[in-house]
Order: sequence, then C-alpha cells, then structure tokens
Amino acid sequence: SVDLRSDTVTRPTSGMRQAMAQAEVGDDVYREDPSVRALEEHVAGLLGHQAALFVPSGTMGNFCALRASAPAGTEIVADVDAHIVTYELGGLAALGGVQTRTLTGLADALDLAEVAAQLRAFPGGQTYNMIRTSVLAVENTQVRAGGRVWALDRLERLRVITDQAGVVLHCDGARLWNAAVALGVPPGRLGEIFGTLSVCLSKGLGAPVGSLVVGDADLVERAREWRKRLGGGMRQAGVLAAAGLYAVRHHLERLADDHRRAGELAELLADVAPGRVHPELTETNMVLVDVPDAHAFAGRAAAGGVLVGTVGPTTARIVTHLDVDDAAVSRAGGVLAPLLRELPPLPR
Amino acid sequence: SVDLRSDTVTRPTSGMRQAMAQAEVGDDVYREDPSVRALEEHVAGLLGHQAALFVPSGTMGNFCALRASAPAGTEIVADVDAHIVTYELGGLAALGGVQTRTLTGLADALDLAEVAAQLRAFPGGQTYNMIRTSVLAVENTQVRAGGRVWALDRLERLRVITDQAGVVLHCDGARLWNAAVALGVPPGRLGEIFGTLSVCLSKGLGAPVGSLVVGDADLVERAREWRKRLGGGMRQAGVLAAAGLYAVRHHLERLADDHRRAGELAELLADVAPGRVHPELTETNMVLVDVPDAHAFAGRAAAGGVLVGTVGPTTARIVTHLDVDDAAVSRAGGVLAPLLRELPPLPR
Amino acid sequence: SVDLRSDTVTRPTSGMRQAMAQAEVGDDVYREDPSVRALEEHVAGLLGHQAALFVPSGTMGNFCALRASAPAGTEIVADVDAHIVTYELGGLAALGGVQTRTLTGLADALDLAEVAAQLRAFPGGQTYNMIRTSVLAVENTQVRAGGRVWALDRLERLRVITDQAGVVLHCDGARLWNAAVALGVPPGRLGEIFGTLSVCLSKGLGAPVGSLVVGDADLVERAREWRKRLGGGMRQAGVLAAAGLYAVRHHLERLADDHRRAGELAELLADVAPGRVHPELTETNMVLVDVPDAHAFAGRAAAGGVLVGTVGPTTARIVTHLDVDDAAVSRAGGVLAPLLRELPPLPR
Amino acid sequence: SVDLRSDTVTRPTSGMRQAMAQAEVGDDVYREDPSVRALEEHVAGLLGHQAALFVPSGTMGNFCALRASAPAGTEIVADVDAHIVTYELGGLAALGGVQTRTLTGLADALDLAEVAAQLRAFPGGQTYNMIRTSVLAVENTQVRAGGRVWALDRLERLRVITDQAGVVLHCDGARLWNAAVALGVPPGRLGEIFGTLSVCLSKGLGAPVGSLVVGDADLVERAREWRKRLGGGMRQAGVLAAAGLYAVRHHLERLADDHRRAGELAELLADVAPGRVHPELTETNMVLVDVPDAHAFAGRAAAGGVLVGTVGPTTARIVTHLDVDDAAVSRAGGVLAPLLRELPPLPR
Ligand SMILES: [Ca+2]
Ligand SMILES: [Ca+2]
Ligand SMILES: [Ca+2]
Ligand SMILES: [Ca+2]
Ligand SMILES: [Ca+2]
Ligand SMILES: [Ca+2]
Repeated sequence: SVDLRSDTVTRPTSGMRQAMAQAEVGDDVYREDPSVRALEEHVAGLLGHQAALFVPSGTMGNFCALRASAPAGTEIVADVDAHIVTYELGGLAALGGVQTRTLTGLADALDLAEVAAQLRAFPGGQTYNMIRTSVLAVENTQVRAGGRVWALDRLERLRVITDQAGVVLHCDGARLWNAAVALGVPPGRLGEIFGTLSVCLSKGLGAPVGSLVVGDADLVERAREWRKRLGGGMRQAGVLAAAGLYAVRHHLERLADDHRRAGELAELLADVAPGRVHPELTETNMVLVDVPDAHAFAGRAAAGGVLVGTVGPTTARIVTHLDVDDAAVSRAGGVLAPLLRELPPLPR
Repeated sequence: SVDLRSDTVTRPTSGMRQAMAQAEVGDDVYREDPSVRALEEHVAGLLGHQAALFVPSGTMGNFCALRASAPAGTEIVADVDAHIVTYELGGLAALGGVQTRTLTGLADALDLAEVAAQLRAFPGGQTYNMIRTSVLAVENTQVRAGGRVWALDRLERLRVITDQAGVVLHCDGARLWNAAVALGVPPGRLGEIFGTLSVCLSKGLGAPVGSLVVGDADLVERAREWRKRLGGGMRQAGVLAAAGLYAVRHHLERLADDHRRAGELAELLADVAPGRVHPELTETNMVLVDVPDAHAFAGRAAAGGVLVGTVGPTTARIVTHLDVDDAAVSRAGGVLAPLLRELPPLPR
Repeated sequence: SVDLRSDTVTRPTSGMRQAMAQAEVGDDVYREDPSVRALEEHVAGLLGHQAALFVPSGTMGNFCALRASAPAGTEIVADVDAHIVTYELGGLAALGGVQTRTLTGLADALDLAEVAAQLRAFPGGQTYNMIRTSVLAVENTQVRAGGRVWALDRLERLRVITDQAGVVLHCDGARLWNAAVALGVPPGRLGEIFGTLSVCLSKGLGAPVGSLVVGDADLVERAREWRKRLGGGMRQAGVLAAAGLYAVRHHLERLADDHRRAGELAELLADVAPGRVHPELTETNMVLVDVPDAHAFAGRAAAGGVLVGTVGPTTARIVTHLDVDDAAVSRAGGVLAPLLRELPPLPR
Repeated sequence: SVDLRSDTVTRPTSGMRQAMAQAEVGDDVYREDPSVRALEEHVAGLLGHQAALFVPSGTMGNFCALRASAPAGTEIVADVDAHIVTYELGGLAALGGVQTRTLTGLADALDLAEVAAQLRAFPGGQTYNMIRTSVLAVENTQVRAGGRVWALDRLERLRVITDQAGVVLHCDGARLWNAAVALGVPPGRLGEIFGTLSVCLSKGLGAPVGSLVVGDADLVERAREWRKRLGGGMRQAGVLAAAGLYAVRHHLERLADDHRRAGELAELLADVAPGRVHPELTETNMVLVDVPDAHAFAGRAAAGGVLVGTVGPTTARIVTHLDVDDAAVSRAGGVLAPLLRELPPLPR
C-alpha cells in the first residue's frame, strides 16, 4: 500500500543504515558521543545558532526549548491550532507548569498590533495580578493548516514585536526544512529569526528517530537539564545521530520533490472535486481534503491500498515524503480521485 | 477620595461586623463550623446545586472547581481574555498541570458550531496523539469585557454542546450575582445551566473575604481535597462565613443600584467624550474608558480624588459598588468629565 | 465535652471578637489593609526578620516559604515524620514540583555529620546527574513527636551546616511559640536561627484563622506571588489579622499554662498506665498515649465526654489549649484514667 | 584507557550493529514497529508480565511506571539513597506532582513492621489530613549501595505488606539482570514479585539506548500515554529495539563474568588497602572504594589510564562491564593498587 498518512512513517534508507552501522559512539549523557556532537554542531551551524541538543522527539524538543525559557507560572502564547496545544498531551502545563494562551489566526489573519497587545511581558506591579508572557511560539510549517508556510516578513515583524516586549520568539520547526525549501531560502535564513527552535529529523528528512533544540549556548544548557529530567538522555545515541546527520546532508533539497508531488496531487483532486481541495493552499508536502466523513473516507482509501490521515471529523490529510515516488503518488491519485468523484457536490 | 478601582475594595458594613462578632464557629477543617455550613448550604440552594465549599478567594474557587473536573494533562477551553488566564498567575498549569486553550469571542462573536468543533472530548485512540478537553469555562460577567452579561440562550446552547461532548461547563461567577440582577432572573436560573461554578462574596456583595465552589456533592468533595492541598482550609472560618451569609442575604438586590449608577456615569462621560465610552456596553457595574494613556489618566483622576483602575495600556475602568452612593458617583463624574473633555478627539 | 483533639479547635475569645469588629481594613491584595500590615510588621519584628506575609493556613505558609526558596526540580530535606510530608497532601510536589527526601531522626538521633552529608547542595557538573538540595526543613515543635522541642544548639549547628552547604534552613513553626515558651526564650531567639519560617496564629494562640511566612524582604515578596497563585490573597483580611494580632499580644505567655496542664495530665495517666505515657516526652502541650487501638480508645473517651485525637493506629493524642482550663483538664483526667487502667499491661 | 566509570559506557558490539542494520521497522508511535513489539513481548515474557513498553532511558522508565500508578498528590515511599530520588532530577515531583518520602535502610536494616507502618494507604477520612501512599519503590540492584542485591525473601515479604496496604510494589530494575544472575535465578523469578518494573538494556547488557516499563496491560497502556507526553515516543525505534533484543538474548548470562571480575578486583584492592574496600559487599559488578578525596583519586587513576567514578566526596566506584575483559581489569588493578597503597591507613 501507499502510505500517505504522515511523513513520520519514512523508514531509514540503506545509506542511513550504513551510517548507523559505522557510527562512532560514546556515552552522550557524559557528553562523549562524537556522532551526537557532530550532528548538534552541524544543525546549530545550519540554523545560525550557537548550540543544539539532540532529543528523542519533536515533543521533547519543544518542551525543552520552551521550558528553558518559560518558568512555571508564566505563559506561552501560540496559535489556537498549534501542535504544542493539540498533539503534545498538555505537557507544557502537566510537566512544566506553564500556561498556554492561544490566539486565532496567528499565522496570517491576526493583525500584528493585536498580537503585540496580547503579550503581557511586563505586568509587573507588586500586586501580582497579571500573568507574564515569556514566549511567543510559532509553528512553521503549521501542520493543522496543511503545511502552510509563514511569510518571512511576518516572522521578522514578530521578532521585532517580541524583542520590544522582552518575550522569546520560538519556532516549532518540525517541518522548518519544508518551509525553507518552499521559500527557496537556506534554513539559516529562517533560523536566525528565532530565539529558539526545535527541528525534526524523522519527518521529511527520513531519519528514524530524533529532533534538536537549537539556540544560544545558555538556552541549550538549560534544555539539557530538562532533557535529563524527562528521561531523554540516551547513552550511545550516536547510532541515531549518525542517521540524522546523513538525513540532513542528503535529504534536505529533495523535499522539493515532495512539494511538487503534493501540488500535482492537489491539482488532480481539485479537478475531480472542486472546492474539496484547494491547490493554492498546498505550499509544501500536504494536501487537505474536505470530505463528509474523514474516518470513512480514510477507510475506503485504505481498502484501495492508499493510507491517508485525518485532522478533523471532515478533513482528510495526504502527505508526501521520502518513501513515495512519482509512481506511488500516481497510484494514490488513481485510487483517491474516483473516491472523491463519488462524493456529493459541496453545498454553496 | 472616591474609590472606583474595583468592587473588591468594599469594606464590611456594621451589619456584617455584627454578624461576624456573633458568629457561632467550630473547626471547619473538621467540618464542624456551623456558620460555614450554613453559608455553603444557602449558596448551594440559591444556585440550584447539591453542595458548596467556602474558599478564601475567587482564584482558589476557580482552581478547586476546575481541577476537580480536569485531570492533569487535559485541557480547559476558555475565552482568550478570561480571568482564569489573565489574573490567576497561571495556577491551572503551574499548580494543577492543566492546559488552557483559548478562543476569541467565546462570549458572543464566535459561532457555536465552531465552539463545538474546538472541544476535543473523545480524541481517544491508542496513539494518544490529541489532548482531551475536560472543561469549557465561561466567565459571567466577564471582567475584561467591562462586566458584560452572557445571553441566557447562548449559555443554554453551550450546555447542550458540552453535554454532547462529555465536557463539563464551568462558570467563573465572581460576578454572577450582577449577571442575574442585570437579566432580572434569580441566581438559580443561571446556576442550573452550569455543571460547576465559583462565586464571590467579596466583590459587589461586599463581604470582606470569601468565595464558594458550587456543584454536585462529589465535585465539591474533590474540591475540598484540593482546597486542603492549597492551604485553603481555615479553622474557625465561621467568622468570615457569617459576613458572607449576611452579604448574600442583604446585598444581592441592591446590585441594581450599582448598575444604575454605572449606567448614568457612562452616559455622562459619553456625552463629553463621544466614542471613548460606550454606554450600551455598560450592562452591569463597570464603565470602560478609552484613553491615550490609562496610567496617566488614572493618575490625574487620583489627583482629583477619584481612584479608577486600568485594564490595558489605553483602557481605564470605573466600577461602582456598595461603598459608593449617588453622591459619590456624582462627585466622581464631576472630576472625570473635565479630564475626558480635555482629551484629543478620537481618530475616525 | 472537653475537646482535646488539637489546639486548632480554639474559638475566638470575646477580646478577639471585639478586635475583629473594630478592625480597620482595606484591600490587602492591593496591599492596603492596615491591620494586616500591622500584624505582619509585628510578627516579623518578634521573630527578628525583615518581613512577614499573612496567609490563610499553616499549609499555605509552609508552601509559600518553601517554594519561594526551592525551584521546581530541587529537593527539600526534612524529617520522615514532618508535617510537610504527612499532613499537607503532597502539595510541595503536586503544586510546586519540589522533591522531598526524608531522613529518620533529624530532630535528635541523627548524627549531624550525616545530615551534612545528605545535603546535595553543589551537585553541579554538566551531566546533571544529581538533584540539588535547596532547603533543609525543621518542624519545631514537631507534632507527630508529641510536641517535642528541638535543642537550641542542634538548631544552631544545623544553621552552620546549611550555610556551608548553601542551603536554606526553614522552620515549620506552627507551634514555634510553644517551643520558645518551653525553652524560656523570646521567640526571636528561635526566629533568628532560621532563614525562613512559617508560624500559626490559629493553634495555641487561639486566633480563628491565619499563619505567617517570615523572612527577608525578597523572600516574602516571592512568597506573596505564590500566595496569589494559590488563591490565598484575601481582600479585607484585616478582620482576621486583627484577631491574630490580639492573639500574639495576649496569648503567648499563657502557653505555659497549657504546658503545665499537659504535664500534669501526663503524670496522672503515666501513674495509672506505666509505659503507655511518658511524661518526660511532654515538653509542651501534647500527651501521646500508647493504646492497643487508638480509634477505639478515642471512641470510648468521646462516650465519656472527652475528645482525643489519634496520630497512628496505636497512638492517641491529647492536646491542651486556650479553651480548656484546669477544671476541664481535671475532668478529662477523670474520664481517661479509668479507660487506661482497664487496658492490658504492656508487653515487656 | 580502561573505562570503569559505569556500565553505561558499553558500546554496541558488531553483532548488535548488524541487528540494527537489518531491523525491520515501522512507526512505533502508530504501534507499527515490529522490532519494538518483538522486544516488548520478549521482555514482558521474560519477567512474567503481560506487557512492556520501550522507552529511551531508565529515568523515563521509572517515571512512566511510577506515574501510571501514582496520581499527583500521592506519595511514593523509597530508600533515602534510591536512584529515583538522587539521579533523576526530581522528575517525579517536578513533572509528575508525586511526593517522595524516603526511609533509611529499606534494602536491609529496616524492620519490615516499621516499613508496613510507614505506608499510609488508607488515610481516608473526610478531613483529607493525611497523604496517601500509592507505591513502594525498590531498587535492585541498588546502585548507591555498590550494586547490592536484595534478599529474595525480603522482597516477597514486602509484596505481602504492600498487597495488604493496597500499595503497588515497583522495582527500579536498571540492573535487575545483575541481581538475577547473582542470585542464580531466572529474571522472571524476580519479575513476578513486583507489580511494576523498569529494566535497562543499555547498562550491563550493552545496548546503546533503551529501557522498558513492565507490568500488566492496563498499567503499560497508562505508561504509554505518559511516554507520549514526555516526548519519549520515537518513530522507527526498531533500530534501537533490535539492538536491545540482541542484548537481552546474548549478554544476559555473561554478566556472571562481570561479577567475577569485580569480585577479583575487590579482593586485590582490599589486600593492599584493608578497610578501604569490602569484597563481601561486591555482590555484582561494582566495587566501592573509601578514599580521602574521591575526585582527586579519580584524577590520579585517569592519569594512569583508568577511569573510575565517584558516588560521594570520599567514595570512588569501579564498575565492570561488557567492554572490559580479564586483561583490562588486570591492567586496571595494576594502576589502582599502587594508588591505594599510597593512601594513609584508615583511622580506627
Ligand atoms: Ca521517519
Ligand atoms: Ca504562504
Ligand atoms: Ca470586599
Ligand atoms: Ca483556633
Ligand atoms: Ca528537648
Ligand atoms: Ca551502553
């Protein structure tokens, strides 16, 4: 079957497996694993920051980066649909004691003056009546928006706003690589905008396991303490880091292929079911499909040998990635198009 | 000076002080204080619920009620401007491990179908990818909206939505009394709509200290455990409860006077500074005033013997209450109107 | 009936009630309540510290004082039987994220070199392998030990040890007043030994509600923020503070009467049931009684009109206080002695 | 150099690397990784339990197992020197809101009746005055005791005690394999005694990364949710699991060699420095050495090409493992013996 549920399903390639088999390792809890260090230095450099920290997942990457900037009893402002408030089981609050307050349309629609007004950076006063905002968190690309890319100038203006407010600007960059490729800029062009980032190796880049926290040396040092507390310190983690380094070195530019394939699939499906698919919103490797019953639609697709995901009761999601080539996407289109054609026309 | 900063500044009346002086008391941690029990039973009955619990503050009332329904690692959905995410120092997250996710316009503008879609009540699935929504929290009246009252039918429809989603509907009813008086309904008419409530005695009702958690017996029992953990168990609390019971019995209906006075003041100020004050938004005991610099405006008013509050950099707040009569409000108007008249006209 | 369960059951005297009725008050969340300020200044001075903060309970006093010194992810070392790990529902961990590690015999038997070795003050190192100890907490008198008083020189040596280790020495002084009276020293002689303290007004001193956090100005300021987060900020709290100030001023020296009565009762009961009561351990206002079934014993005593507490399955507790005079204690002895005489002799 | 700091420093063997290179993988967050499933089933079976869960570290294994049994606001009782209160940065409290209360001598000296008395399993009562004990945690072998093995009958009697108290008996089994080998019993003989366990693959067994939570199906399911929240869900984790499965299958019995080598080294060092090393306490793969300055001693050893650890200011630790053979241990002895011989004789 063709698995288009998520780009997390990518399996290590033979090149990666070879890198893993040959990796030099040490005890990374003692900071002695050369492969982990090489990966951390490479990614920090790529994103224009001083330091990086290898962690087992994007969820842990976000937590360590954010908690290192946000004391318990402060708040992180984010989009109401952000990954950190949807898919991370409330860890910021449950494990870290940090409040989240969410805005609607942070990625695009919300006026920046309104964003600025929402940052309670110096509530001060000796009556302790208002919570302090410590971080503004952006997700780029934003998964629940179908992999949308934030406009560079919006990000830059957010950095000005957060600097003025004394608030850290964080990027949940699980798919920052896709954003950079879509924008045609080097990752560092995006990286430099943020105070802290987390980035994933196991999605479009195809590594089996791993993410990184990226920032200045102090931040990463505090994140390291949180990683230990969470149980994310791994001993001979170099076997994973070697795969990750291979992924960053070999699979970054090819994300453009995923984007092209997603775009072609979006066009195909929009042709057979106008209004259900919006090709202009497929900026990276995802296609959202508006269906009457997402769960049922995914079931019918699976029966035809194509696995798709769901992001809501009436929204299916298709994701292209390293393990699906032109032929596979074409096969998927051949299964999905007839299913969409059968659906009733959308109400106007 | 005339203190219009907040209705929390009310001082106990002589009737209350007499009630306190004569209060029968016992050890309330042992559940043996007759005055506390009398207050709890009275307020539970007034709001149409089984049980109530006396706590030292509205912040603790909200926490105990909400945490009793919301396990760590679940989320509470609320308005982006709610008291619980603004003025309670992130306690739900910091002390309770509960995530808050906030919506814009929950009180009025937001379509109810969209509210329903935001409740993730049965994310289920064995991959644990999505956080569960445990509570939808409403604040009535909503303080940062200037004491706005929620429409009864909107609340009733929210109850249907939350019931369908298996989510608890909570009311931060610090000023529920004002809402009931403004709507012309008994408090129980509002109380019965919610699964849980917190209500305050120390604001418009004029008691010196205290709030209550209200709900069914099991909920209140769980809240009692949280109150003990927070250090909110007070020994001979009957001295406070007696004042609270006096306040509920004698100061509920007179809230209408506060509302009338606030309305008159709003009209007066709107006349001298059109656009800066919107009398139609003064539904209860608060007047918001749009000024170039709220802090400076409050300073000038104080110099004239009138204390006003601020709720944002360009918004001042005036609150009427038990300790200000017609004469005091008139004096306040005489100070504030000239200050407003001096301000530059608003840009169109 | 004669209520000897705890000194918390004391009811406000008429002098206190009068003080409450006449109390000048203001909004203490705005720091404007003169009675609260007067109490805070008086108690700070009495204990030889810069500042104090009024809170609703000893549990909250301990939490605010301790959490203000102990960041989440650090540890507090205390006795295995301390109130903070027995009767406060795990709040330090549950609300504050602070670990407790407990030692056996901290009050007396444990060698001080061993105590010093247990403080992990500078675990440092970049591998983050060992938790840091932030506070050593003492409870004086220690309730589960029957109101035992710590030796002054042991406390002073603990202060040297904690200073050397960079660890704060805290006193849970719910009954510090009793310790001072038993030692025949002013409270400040004890107070000055500690970096932070919490003290209660509602136990032997007889106030209806309230405790205080005591320490230097910075510490108390941080405690104030935690008090707000916990919901311990009370509006016109002066009505309680006035009772507390009366209690500190009028009921401190009379604790000696409670101690004398407890001692006499211990002697009486030891005479009829040798080995079950140890008068030499009654240093303050408590008598522990070793019985086969503490719950059953308390039941039989209650049937005779005497209420006693239990601190374990085979340990009953008798506490003298403001509301029991010589006659009442004599009546209690008349009920309890026969009950003890009936018990089987203790096994040797 | 010969690295005897810890058995965590073991590097994957070529057999393991081959297993990793050939591992079948899937997305383990979707529960589709066949290698992870095979490892989980194998280890669950080996320890006589229904289910197991692969996690990145022993710290996470302990947290997930313990938090799955211990709600926030309950307590875990453990030894004062347990790994969970020493080397896990307070995660149980900081992340999980669970109190730890620690006993001295839990592993051996403490009377079991006293242990039973310390479990507050049914504090009940409607006054919520006493915290509830949810778990008793044992560490076998106990690292800070130098790898001591718990007596089987003591463990069995603890299980009876905890069952009677309604408390879960957990084993931090980071080195459970060593305990089983030292006792000459299959791991399941130990596993069946406990309600929950965590076991490590990356220590004596030599795998690069990974631990497992072991227990019944419900427990493991709850642990899985906590793993996700902590960020311990790894995508194609089969590359690690394959190494772990290889380790369990091939390196379990050979732990006897580590134990023999540690014993021989202990004898050698005790000969040259009587009283500084106690061979009778080396029951598994560790030797503790009493020195005037552990840090300085480790430095001198390192200069001689032998790396040793420290577990206290005057205690050095030597650990044998998969990567040190007879020759290496012999070389280490040749360096360490002269260093010990130079030390001043111990005071009597
Ligand atoms: Ca992957
Ligand atoms: Ca765009
Ligand atoms: Ca008031
Ligand atoms: Ca009292
Ligand atoms: Ca003594
Ligand atoms: Ca290893």
